[in-house]
Amino acid sequence: MKVGVYGLGRFGAFWAKTLADAGCTVLAYSRSSHEVDGRVSKVSEDELLKCPYIFFCVAISRFEEVLERTAPRMDPSSVVIDTCSVKTYPAKWMREKLHPGQVAIATHPMFGPDSGKNGVEGLPVVLCRISDEDEHYSKVRDLFVSMGLHVLEMSPMEHDREAAYSQGVTHFVGRTLKEMGLEDTEIATKGYKSLMSIVEQTCNDPMQLFCDLQRYNPYAKEMRLSLQVAIEKVLNRLMMEEM
Amino acid sequence: MKVGVYGLGRFGAFWAKTLADAGCTVLAYSRSSHEVDGRVSKVSEDELLKCPYIFFCVAISRFEEVLERTAPRMDPSSVVIDTCSVKTYPAKWMREKLHPGQVAIATHPMFGPDSGKNGVEGLPVVLCRISDEDEHYSKVRDLFVSMGLHVLEMSPMEHDREAAYSQGVTHFVGRTLKEMGLEDTEIATKGYKSLMSIVEQTCNDPMQLFCDLQRYNPYAKEMRLSLQVAIEKVLNRLMMEEM
Repeated sequence: MKVGVYGLGRFGAFWAKTLADAGCTVLAYSRSSHEVDGRVSKVSEDELLKCPYIFFCVAISRFEEVLERTAPRMDPSSVVIDTCSVKTYPAKWMREKLHPGQVAIATHPMFGPDSGKNGVEGLPVVLCRISDEDEHYSKVRDLFVSMGLHVLEMSPMEHDREAAYSQGVTHFVGRTLKEMGLEDTEIATKGYKSLMSIVEQTCNDPMQLFCDLQRYNPYAKEMRLSLQVAIEKVLNRLMMEEM
Repeated sequence: MKVGVYGLGRFGAFWAKTLADAGCTVLAYSRSSHEVDGRVSKVSEDELLKCPYIFFCVAISRFEEVLERTAPRMDPSSVVIDTCSVKTYPAKWMREKLHPGQVAIATHPMFGPDSGKNGVEGLPVVLCRISDEDEHYSKVRDLFVSMGLHVLEMSPMEHDREAAYSQGVTHFVGRTLKEMGLEDTEIATKGYKSLMSIVEQTCNDPMQLFCDLQRYNPYAKEMRLSLQVAIEKVLNRLMMEEM
């Protein structure tokens, strides 16, 4: 299977390598020069846009503009697959910007270079059918299954609601604890060690990803409010105990 | 080594069993009837108070009153060892309430029935010398070393500062996320799974422990303020990105 990877940031480089591991022929394009796995061929933007399957691995906040610029230069038979950590807006953008009838598939691999560093087998990937089409959709699903991924099919909205209250809250907690300047300590309990590993994992990802996750997920604001309300409730309980 | 365990709550019952595993002859007293390991002999309060080494495993908020009531009935040669999750106040109470010259040792095993369920080897225990005495202090330290514990000696204030920003923040985050009603999801990232394990571990402990940890640690209020400031900073960064 010949696939293109558009964008070789932290996730794109990892994803290109993962697709090569799965036996794909991988072409990749990036505006800046990144280190990439030896099996991945770096090509020009125009050449990349000729691939039959194009995975977009760009920041959520850049995706709309990148699509707008590249869609007119694509062959309508190319299948466009995004890998953004939110799904409602990217699905909408693909529906709006691509050629009429061009197949788009929205995906979210729920892992990255840290959580997938020992292989991706058993890890979850979300798959959203947004074009009324079976052949290519099945081919991409089969590819994911062959990689040992745990494929979960749902709508973009379902994904975003679940993700806000799982991945979204995890990143928010990780960034907040990082901001507190917490450090390792010899008296660390097991729970604190788990907490520190969350800080490390979430803050290894670019700040852009964190901001985009919070801004472009329609449920993120509600999640953050719910977190703030929960903190108030816990603080109030402590004050009541003191009385 | 003959030891007494005063209090058989969640931690006390676990600690009595752990001391029996270490080869101690363990007597225990509890005002209510709890299940306890077969090697632990349940005795009356008066009999327990005759033990040469008495470990107190009562809630932090009950410890002062329990000491006040039991100290006059102890032999001044009994060594009193607390296991509270904060150290400044319990150390002060032991200095104030025990017989003049009676030896007191402040300890905090940084684990419990959950984190120690597969054995305690390698886990940290904090030891604070609060009496000007060597013999019994060394004997307790040697007992902990023989159990494979990682013994860390420090002052009660040093412990409380480190613990507020590690165990204290972990429990606060755990209780807050529990309050949010977060649930398992099929699309859980590895980070979210770690977060859920923290919720489970911290909320398995009694609510009383959580409240006491936050109220009786002199650094806990500062830690909670620091957490709230960090959240504000993260939220402000998100708002600035939106402008």
